[in-house]
Parts: sequence; structure tokens; C-alpha cells
Amino acid sequence: MQQVGKDLYQTRLAGSPQRIARQEPVVHNGDWSGAPLNRDALTAFDRDGFLVLENVFSPREVEQMRSTAEAMRAHPASLARETVISEPDAGAVRSVFAPHRQSDEFDLISRDPRLAGLARFILDDEVYIHQSRLNYKPAFTGKEFYWHSDFETWHAEDGMPRMRALSMSVMLTDNHPQAGPVMFVPGSQKQFIACVGETPDENYKSSLKRQRTGIPDRASISAMVEAGGIEAPAPKAGSVVIFDCNTLHASSGNITPFERMNAFFVFNAWSNRLEQPFSASRPRPEHIAHRRVDGPLRPIVRGQWDIS
Amino acid sequence: MQQVGKDLYQTRLAGSPQRIARQEPVVHNGDWSGAPLNRDALTAFDRDGFLVLENVFSPREVEQMRSTAEAMRAHPASLARETVISEPDAGAVRSVFAPHRQSDEFDLISRDPRLAGLARFILDDEVYIHQSRLNYKPAFTGKEFYWHSDFETWHAEDGMPRMRALSMSVMLTDNHPQAGPVMFVPGSQKQFIACVGETPDENYKSSLKRQRTGIPDRASISAMVEAGGIEAPAPKAGSVVIFDCNTLHASSGNITPFERMNAFFVFNAWSNRLEQPFSASRPRPEHIAHRRVDGPLRPIVRGQWDIS
Repeated sequence: MQQVGKDLYQTRLAGSPQRIARQEPVVHNGDWSGAPLNRDALTAFDRDGFLVLENVFSPREVEQMRSTAEAMRAHPASLARETVISEPDAGAVRSVFAPHRQSDEFDLISRDPRLAGLARFILDDEVYIHQSRLNYKPAFTGKEFYWHSDFETWHAEDGMPRMRALSMSVMLTDNHPQAGPVMFVPGSQKQFIACVGETPDENYKSSLKRQRTGIPDRASISAMVEAGGIEAPAPKAGSVVIFDCNTLHASSGNITPFERMNAFFVFNAWSNRLEQPFSASRPRPEHIAHRRVDGPLRPIVRGQWDIS
Repeated sequence: MQQVGKDLYQTRLAGSPQRIARQEPVVHNGDWSGAPLNRDALTAFDRDGFLVLENVFSPREVEQMRSTAEAMRAHPASLARETVISEPDAGAVRSVFAPHRQSDEFDLISRDPRLAGLARFILDDEVYIHQSRLNYKPAFTGKEFYWHSDFETWHAEDGMPRMRALSMSVMLTDNHPQAGPVMFVPGSQKQFIACVGETPDENYKSSLKRQRTGIPDRASISAMVEAGGIEAPAPKAGSVVIFDCNTLHASSGNITPFERMNAFFVFNAWSNRLEQPFSASRPRPEHIAHRRVDGPLRPIVRGQWDIS
């Protein structure tokens, strides 16, 4: 059942691609006096749609997360089958969805004030996890991921009404600049690219490997890159990259001997919970877009995660 | 007919990959007093196996070369059919071979003292063009090119006896760091990776699109990268990148809106002319590996190329 209410960001239509001005702020909180980030960092995030925070997690915390992530990859049979996504050709595990529901450790990380607290401030609301993933980009054979706005998919296929969500990616390895790092187009979060083409049924089954719908047109990508350029930070392990739900991003393939791994969390404002999809016949499944959520993320009880 | 004389660099064998120490110098000329490059630059080339020279060609020269290269791409029917190579999927022209035999302008460029004079110095010999190419890496869909040593192929399939050749790539566009630039492994030119697997007949027909033989093993690549790192210069139009025939290099795919284009010339020492292939049943065709060469490159008569 498709959404029948007002759709601020119509997409997946016939005809030609459109660009729609963003209707919401990027930093929703108007009072920066008590912000967990300094003014320059918040200004940069507001302007660019992404921000790199270095040394957020200690080497010991990273080591613990990485070993858990490696154990989960090595034992996919211990995970819910549908949460394990493989590379198109090679069969290597590329992503594990919903680690915060399958590991106490990643549950705690998702609620850590360094992540959830910052998300609460920027979104100016209680928050919950819309999606989480462990991403493994293998050495030598890592595949590219073409340009896209996450919000376009979350709106069209998951029914996320407004741009009041953001992603945080915790780097579990050092990122080499040539190992297919995520590329961002600064400023692109301020325009929504309405994409051409209807959503096929069960699109998610292939789109997580290689996206074929919800793909921005080349002219829009070129115009946004012309305006904002491309930035591809290569942060060290323990860094966190925050990016707005509508920032245009992509990653090239990785043929270097360096694999990379991160833990990825999407925080959505509690007031922005999912409705029916705006441009798909059925919502995507629970492990990709969480609907069964009891309430906002609970703060960590002190001492639950204190190895740093 | 395969080579029967002594083979210093046996490759394409059964069994496990081998690494063989380089038998020749990188800079063949022992007298640097009259060098066309300063000592630091020569030292860097000798150590790293590659070197970027900036502002070698003027904007006006670049513009003229680029418009000629674009015209050649736009009118492939005016070129020898076998010299035009297309992308595996899309069909876009990826390379044009032997531009110096198909265009007076690229003939002159290949003999320009800024290129040929420097090649003569480094190789300490008269030189000729072993291969030349115009390379077009398209925006959005440019394919990756996996790690390889050019010499491995030139030795195995073309019968180039010794490491006394080098490549010069003239940048006809600015290179964006994320647009799949060539990645080099500094120092890798000092070891030859003998690759596993016999050469199929007419291997060149597919290997120019995607290489399947003569591929270094992952352990060797990892060891060389561990020792030397990866450098991916992003030179401006008018720059020249020089690299030794045995330097390990690769390029990632290009999904950015930036296309890139270069004119690529391989200078071989006159004393190092091709023999029979060392590891293939027949030599590759003339347009890929020149055998019909009258004599060393003639210097340009003054005034033939003087638009700068």
C-alpha cells in the first residue's frame, strides 16, 4: 500500500529527473550553546552534509569492535540469514545488517552518547536506529557503489517522511585513500534529486548489491559536483564519519591490498518514524528498515561500556 | 615460435609465483652531468620507478593534442580498425593504438626532445616507439585496470629481452584524485613477478579489455605494497608521468563526472628490440608491439612543432 498523504519528495516517476529544494534544516537544533560539537564543526556539517570526527573511539574499543565484526563475518550461520549480504561475484560477505540487534556490543555502541547523543542534538529529537550494518570492503575485489542519496531510498521504499535522519560510520580499520573510500559531494544534501523509473517489487534484493532504481541522473550529479566538488576522506580507525541522510555519496571499487571495515548506524528522529512507502508497493523488510521499535534509544547505564 | 635463447625473466609457468631480482639498472646512464633532469628527479625515478613532471607541455599544445585526440575518437572509421579498443560493456572507445603512426601531430610529439630526449638519456641508447596509445577513461563508467607490470607482458608476449624501456604518459586533461588515477607501487620496478599460467592464443584480444593472464599473485602485490606503499598522483593537463617498464601499477574504476585522457608512448632502447616471444606461441600484432621499425626515432627538425 503506497502512501496517500502529502509527498514532499516525489521520486521514481516517469518523465525527466527533477531537483527539489530541501524542506528541512540539516542541523535541526537552533540552540548551539549546549552542543556536543564546537561551532566550526557544526557549521561544516550544516554546509557540507558530512563531517569527520577523529579519535572518537580508543584503539582498545576499536580492537574489540573489530574482533566482534570479524567473528560475525566468519560465522554467518550464527546470524539471521537475511541479514548477511555477499559480493555480486565473489560471494564474500559484504554487509551484515542489524548488528545492534545481533550483538550486545553493537547495541551498546549504537546507544553510546558519542553517537546517539550527537544524533539527538543534531536532529533535535529523541532518536532510534532506522538501519545498522557492518560493511566489509574486501581487498583486491571490493566493488564500487554508485552515486546515491540514502534518503531517496528510505523515502521511496521505506516511507521515511522527512529529512530528519543521519548516518554515522565508525571506522574499524584505517582507510587508505585509494581503497575505494566513500566520496561525498559537499552541499548536495540541500537538494533532492527525484529519480526516474518505478520501483520493481522486491527491489531491495538486488539493490543492496548493485542499485538499478533510485539512481540520480548524470546531469544532476555533474551539476552538484560542479558546485561542490568531491571529497573522499580517508579516516583512521576509531574515527566517525557523520553524514546527512540526503548527502550524495558513492564509493569506487577497491583493488588495493587493504580491506576496510566499518560499523554503520542510521539515526532517525523519533518524530520521523516510517509510514507507508512513498514510491513502492510494499515496505522493505524489517532487518533493512526497522519498524518494530519499542521506543527511542535508551541511554547507556554507566559502566556497561567502559573499556576505553 | 617461442624464444630459445636465455630467458632472464621466465614467466607464465605452472607452479607457484616467483620473484626475480631485476638484472638491469633503472637509470641506464651512469653519467648524470649532462642530464635533462636534475639529480633529485633522477634519484626519485631510480628509487620509485615513476616520476611526475609538471608543466611540460603548454596549455596551447595540450589543447591542440586534446582536440586531435577527440577527433580521432569521434571518427574511429578514419583509423585502422584494429587500433580502436572499446570498453567491455558500454562500447565507448577506451584506447586508440599507434596514434604516432596515424597522426602527424602525435608522430612529432613522440619525437619531441622533452620526451624522446629524456628517454634517450635514461635508457642510454637510441630509442624507438614500442607502443603508443591514446587512453580515454570515460566519466561515470570507466573500468578498473588490475595490477600489472607492463614488462611482464612485453617480455612474455612481445619478446622484449631486457628491462630497458619506459613509458611516458602525457596528460591531456586534469586528473581528479578520485577519477581512477594510475596507482604506482614505489620500488616495485626492482623485482620481477613471474606469473602463473600459460598464455592463451590471441590473448591480446581480451587482455586489453580485462587482463586474465600475466596477473601477479596477491601475496607478491601485498608484499610490494607493504614495502613501498601506493602512490596515485593526480597531475594536471600538460604534465608527463614517466614510469619504468617494470613498475607495478593499476587504476581503479572511474564513477566521477570527470573523464580523463592521455597520450601514452613506450620508448624502448634500440639495442633492446623485440625478439620472439618468451612465453607465447606467436607475437602480438604490429599495432600493439612494433617490429616494423626502420631505425631509431629521428630528432624533430626545428620548426616542425613550435606552437608553444
